[in-house]
Amino acid sequence: MTQLENVTVQAQANVYFDGKCVSHTVLLADGTRKTVGVVLAAALTFGTEAPETMEVVGGSCRVRLAGSEDWTEYAEGSSFDVPANSSFDIEVDERFDYICSYG
Amino acid sequence: MTQLENVTVQAQANVYFDGKCVSHTVLLADGTRKTVGVVLAAALTFGTEAPETMEVVGGSCRVRLAGSEDWTEYAEGSSFDVPANSSFDIEVDERFDYICSYG
Repeated sequence: MTQLENVTVQAQANVYFDGKCVSHTVLLADGTRKTVGVVLAAALTFGTEAPETMEVVGGSCRVRLAGSEDWTEYAEGSSFDVPANSSFDIEVDERFDYICSYG
Repeated sequence: MTQLENVTVQAQANVYFDGKCVSHTVLLADGTRKTVGVVLAAALTFGTEAPETMEVVGGSCRVRLAGSEDWTEYAEGSSFDVPANSSFDIEVDERFDYICSYG
């Protein structure tokens, strides 16, 4: 099971899209911020500010980056990058557990 | 903001009641397990195995312990205890962020 060690976790959750996406913020020892989260069955569009790397730690999803017409499926163990100030469409059939890194 | 420091966080979420409750498991340095989670607007019944202490770190809830007829409201900064092998009814109007400790 994927885990992040020697970190600080913020107890208040981040809730998006009426709870279709819930995450908790994690601070690494060096101050780097990540989030661990889950997207439940849904079709959503997320915007980015910083560039993001989404690492799939459970389940799967289909992703279409802004400006692309192609959907790509990502399963556990894979990851995808999203540019800064962009967006991506995501479709989840069951659930998609992730670690999101920024910048 | 309440946070847990020097911990390990498991990246896969715990999802209950179709996502009305989502938590992440946290391991303290001494091996103690806690969960940080959120309950969204819902009326639910949770069962316990180990005794639980629920610390309200955001939002509020109303709770009725098994065997009681009384509902008690808990707001941020308060906590409630649930015996082992028991259950409690919980009503949340907006959201209820918690840290759950076991045993």
